[in-house]
Amino acid sequence: MTGASSLGTVAIVGAGQVGTMLGLALRASGAAREVTVFDRDPEVASRSVARGAAHRASEHLDLDAEVVILALPVSAIVEIIVRDGPGLRPGTLVIDTGSAKRAVVAAMGRLDPGVHAIGGHPLAGTERRGPEGADPGALRGATFALCPVRDDPEALRLARALVAAMGARALVLDAATHDRAVARTSALPHLLAFALARATAPLGADVQALAASGYRGATRLAQSDPRMVAAFLVANSVETRAAVAELRRSLDEIVACLDDESALEAKLSEAAL
Amino acid sequence: MTGASSLGTVAIVGAGQVGTMLGLALRASGAAREVTVFDRDPEVASRSVARGAAHRASEHLDLDAEVVILALPVSAIVEIIVRDGPGLRPGTLVIDTGSAKRAVVAAMGRLDPGVHAIGGHPLAGTERRGPEGADPGALRGATFALCPVRDDPEALRLARALVAAMGARALVLDAATHDRAVARTSALPHLLAFALARATAPLGADVQALAASGYRGATRLAQSDPRMVAAFLVANSVETRAAVAELRRSLDEIVACLDDESALEAKLSEAAL
Repeated sequence: MTGASSLGTVAIVGAGQVGTMLGLALRASGAAREVTVFDRDPEVASRSVARGAAHRASEHLDLDAEVVILALPVSAIVEIIVRDGPGLRPGTLVIDTGSAKRAVVAAMGRLDPGVHAIGGHPLAGTERRGPEGADPGALRGATFALCPVRDDPEALRLARALVAAMGARALVLDAATHDRAVARTSALPHLLAFALARATAPLGADVQALAASGYRGATRLAQSDPRMVAAFLVANSVETRAAVAELRRSLDEIVACLDDESALEAKLSEAAL
Repeated sequence: MTGASSLGTVAIVGAGQVGTMLGLALRASGAAREVTVFDRDPEVASRSVARGAAHRASEHLDLDAEVVILALPVSAIVEIIVRDGPGLRPGTLVIDTGSAKRAVVAAMGRLDPGVHAIGGHPLAGTERRGPEGADPGALRGATFALCPVRDDPEALRLARALVAAMGARALVLDAATHDRAVARTSALPHLLAFALARATAPLGADVQALAASGYRGATRLAQSDPRMVAAFLVANSVETRAAVAELRRSLDEIVACLDDESALEAKLSEAAL
């Protein structure tokens, strides 16, 4: 599993920002003999190929490659695994990029044990949509979570090779731990950005002029694709609700000090990162 | 009020990030004949002078300049106006940089009417503290809010000249409108960043590895000086509480859809900026 083309053929399903980012990184590495990309919207697949993310676009969902990467919203990943998983050939590495892992890993657990399935999550997206939003440089040194489905050392070995080829760093952890963590580090920031942007959307032009870089930073994630965000929030709703409850407590404790400057300063100081 | 040195002598009170940023921009403009800086911590004033923000540091609070800029936390600005304001000479332009304006403008309203007082707020800070955190380039094209204290065209004329010299754009509005807007565009983003950082502070190393750029962006403002943030939140606590209530409603409406992907997508789409 070293040297050029060691990953063989790679089929990327989903030609959006994440699928295109992975394809670009893979092609730059030379680790794949052929990379194809499929998207239910052929025009999006063409734009991904035009950016150089794949050698060619597939006209149909093609699971015959040696490596299959599912780069879709979480609900679509689960749907494809359940519907098309029985057609996967033994020996294939199947990995996804969804940002909630319990539902995906549970679905993968019902695949033929000869299929090397593993949950994946690159912590390297951007809020820009589509193939044009892909930044393969964002993968360099980024964490790529790997969540094993079963005791399958070959799945882990292949997935580590794939992650290394793309320049990212593998972090192996179970799906439940992943989802708990990501509810706090990803779901919460997204929720807050959308909640803030919604709450302040009726602001007039004067107020927009008063929005400094802090406001733009705080609402940046609200430019993410609502479909993608809705999918991963719903797929991780239990942990997300728990994280929101923690955030509410933290906010309440701060707001309770709004009339006492030194108490408030002490409370804010607890946020030291 | 055009040409070199048209602003005369300028005394900056407070040599932190904001005071240093303004001093650097002023000195680069050549619009001030002499810029001095005072800080209750002489060592901070020296570092500001070393960065080039002033010709020299004042050993004592000096309000004898033609332009006095109070670049301090809001509570300290009000304290100085109340305590030292009677010593200001008629004809002096007094302006501050506090991010809450009603309390400052109310205090300025009790100054001798011969003093040209006006509330100011440059929307161009950073979360880095002290003279070293100052970025004069951040002022270029940034909004600089001006909140009149009384009908005083000369105060407005002088303040506009000062703002223009620093490369910023003046936005004149009343203090109440300013504070309502800033509660939403500044207080809320700061509160959420601190609340999120506090809620996630007990996370382990694995979780930190799962924190992508979205999380770092969402908690960036929590690196701000807690003393400065506490001062402006308390000074604007009424509007800040109202803004938090709006944020809560917005968050509740989103969280209520966490089990319905299409309803959630619709709710998130309302955040379109």
